[in-house]
Amino acid sequence: MSLHTATTSAPVNIACIKYWGKRDTKLILPTNSSLSVTLDQDHLRSTTTSRADPSFEKDRLWLNGIEEEIQAGGRMATCIAEMKRLRKELVEEVDASAPKISGYFVHIASHNNFPTAAGLASSASGFAALTASLAALYALPCPPTTLSLIARQGSGSACRSLMGGFVAWNAGTDASGLDSHAVQIAPESHWPDIHALICVVSDAKKGTSSTSGMQRTVETSPLLQHRIKHVVPQRMTDISAAILARDFDRFAEITMADSNQFHAVALDTSPPIFYMNDVSRAIVAVIEEYNRIALLPENGGKRKAAYTQHQEIINLIVHYFPQQDAFKDPFALFGTAGVGSGAVLAGFNVNVAKVAEVGAVKGLIHTRVGDGPRTLTEEESLLGTNGLPLKMAQK
Amino acid sequence: MSLHTATTSAPVNIACIKYWGKRDTKLILPTNSSLSVTLDQDHLRSTTTSRADPSFEKDRLWLNGIEEEIQAGGRMATCIAEMKRLRKELVEEVDASAPKISGYFVHIASHNNFPTAAGLASSASGFAALTASLAALYALPCPPTTLSLIARQGSGSACRSLMGGFVAWNAGTDASGLDSHAVQIAPESHWPDIHALICVVSDAKKGTSSTSGMQRTVETSPLLQHRIKHVVPQRMTDISAAILARDFDRFAEITMADSNQFHAVALDTSPPIFYMNDVSRAIVAVIEEYNRIALLPENGGKRKAAYTQHQEIINLIVHYFPQQDAFKDPFALFGTAGVGSGAVLAGFNVNVAKVAEVGAVKGLIHTRVGDGPRTLTEEESLLGTNGLPLKMAQK
Repeated sequence: MSLHTATTSAPVNIACIKYWGKRDTKLILPTNSSLSVTLDQDHLRSTTTSRADPSFEKDRLWLNGIEEEIQAGGRMATCIAEMKRLRKELVEEVDASAPKISGYFVHIASHNNFPTAAGLASSASGFAALTASLAALYALPCPPTTLSLIARQGSGSACRSLMGGFVAWNAGTDASGLDSHAVQIAPESHWPDIHALICVVSDAKKGTSSTSGMQRTVETSPLLQHRIKHVVPQRMTDISAAILARDFDRFAEITMADSNQFHAVALDTSPPIFYMNDVSRAIVAVIEEYNRIALLPENGGKRKAAYTQHQEIINLIVHYFPQQDAFKDPFALFGTAGVGSGAVLAGFNVNVAKVAEVGAVKGLIHTRVGDGPRTLTEEESLLGTNGLPLKMAQK
Repeated sequence: MSLHTATTSAPVNIACIKYWGKRDTKLILPTNSSLSVTLDQDHLRSTTTSRADPSFEKDRLWLNGIEEEIQAGGRMATCIAEMKRLRKELVEEVDASAPKISGYFVHIASHNNFPTAAGLASSASGFAALTASLAALYALPCPPTTLSLIARQGSGSACRSLMGGFVAWNAGTDASGLDSHAVQIAPESHWPDIHALICVVSDAKKGTSSTSGMQRTVETSPLLQHRIKHVVPQRMTDISAAILARDFDRFAEITMADSNQFHAVALDTSPPIFYMNDVSRAIVAVIEEYNRIALLPENGGKRKAAYTQHQEIINLIVHYFPQQDAFKDPFALFGTAGVGSGAVLAGFNVNVAKVAEVGAVKGLIHTRVGDGPRTLTEEESLLGTNGLPLKMAQK
């Protein structure tokens, strides 16, 4: 094995306050702050091995076993160059005994344990894993906040995947981008019982890419500026307080409102951007009805989805959106009998949605809040002794 | 026949700048001004006969032949009472020889020539026809603007159906509502070649009523206030100028942007309000793609839907949304061969939408800009000599 190799995994994150719009497209500086929950790497992760070796002839990258070109001046090249610079400035120029590996080319192999078809953005976990693996390779004495400045230039929301728990990305104001980084609001241990049920909605049509879509919104939506200036700052304050107070009712209220407002500004774009279809709208309708019942005084008067009552919600979703495959039950909530028949809560308006066809929601992933990037052992390396990717089917 | 009877018809209108939100729910005072195109009564209309007679024992109303209760304090009762008051104050107290009919009970029969299932709001044309027929019955010396103050209290957008052509509803600022009335921006003769193709989208789910939905938006949408204060005023100015200049490109641009923004603030409501489904989104996608091609310099660089090129657009819509019944061709655009095969424009991205199932768009109505309320002859009365509704199947 090479002396200079490191493997790390990094998590997916899901935004509660949405990032939508850049004020600098090269440095990836956002128009507003955002906040996310880091999801458990036991279920969803990107794993990356980085290696530096004098025998390598150029920087090379493999994603899920397929080599991708590293385009000069592109986001990947920027991240690699920045990490090499940090190695040189913070390690090699400080400690004369440190190996001069910043001048070596690197080989990088990355793998996502979730299918692209799941509809989860792999760029956030992918660029976080890349940054974390290079930081480990180069033994950088940098806290996650500093690394988040680099990951941000690969993919904006990647900066939030460098920390576990509840993570804010402060938009910052400086043109350099040096104040546009992630910060942990609370670790996963603060509120470990936050769960997420990801409903993978099937959509035959290719949506607008987020990179081009968000800039069209910046250019054409009259409502976006109001959101940026007047709505998001208050929501960032309010949801941070809700997280620190473990106030799920308020946390859920703000999260749902901000999801709706993100879709609203997408719709206020010219031409309009649609990221919801009849199935995702039906999911929203079912959860809103569930919370309408939960908010009745006799039921406690607080929103419950997706906090407590995991079984109840999974039953409900599986009832309205029948699954081809048996529900993967990572928390062993259901016995051998499996998911039930979707017993209906008292007062629940069953007509809020029609029972969908099998496949309308083509997958359900039950996960929870989790930790930041993990450094893995050599046994988990994605690169073989020859510096080329191993087969990764089992990773 | 009674001496005191009148029959009028009134048009449907379709908003280009949308009315969404009331600042006074009793007087129906809106949070923002709006603007609409009045559609041709040759195709879509409400017809109303009003009669006053000393033999009548109470105010009675029939809608499409079915008697409806006139609830005390309700919108219908308010409109009738206001019209009786105007008769008394402006006619009977001014001209001693005028018959004292304001004290008589009235019988009112109203009929829409379009099915409720068409999804067109019948309350606008209905309250406009009611107001116009009572104005004729009472021989009121009132211009349409004054009558619009009464119709507005029946259904907000009804005030815009009291005039033909292009009609603004000025929100006004006074608590009395006396400055919240319709005004004609331009008559239909100013720009008669504005056509509309109404696509009636099938939707199994009952939507949120506009009355409750718009107040939920007022109470919960952070974006609505920005729309009210900063977006709509400029758009009212801009679209009025576009109408006066017959600038279809600008007119279409503002109309489409405002439709999207209306749906955006509905989505920004908690719980969110969805008025679009996968079919209506596909219609938008097809028209946006059509206009993308139209906006190419080699094609003239201007939006065309739904102005010129009626045949091209109808072919396109019928291609993507196949119809059960043959297209009703009121302008005889197509010969005996009927609608063509949806010949595609050069460069049109055919994958912008999938060809829908028959019935996804369950009806197409081709119409154009039209005139304001019409006073009809006694032959068209909906009330028989006994003061009760005639059969109205053929009206």
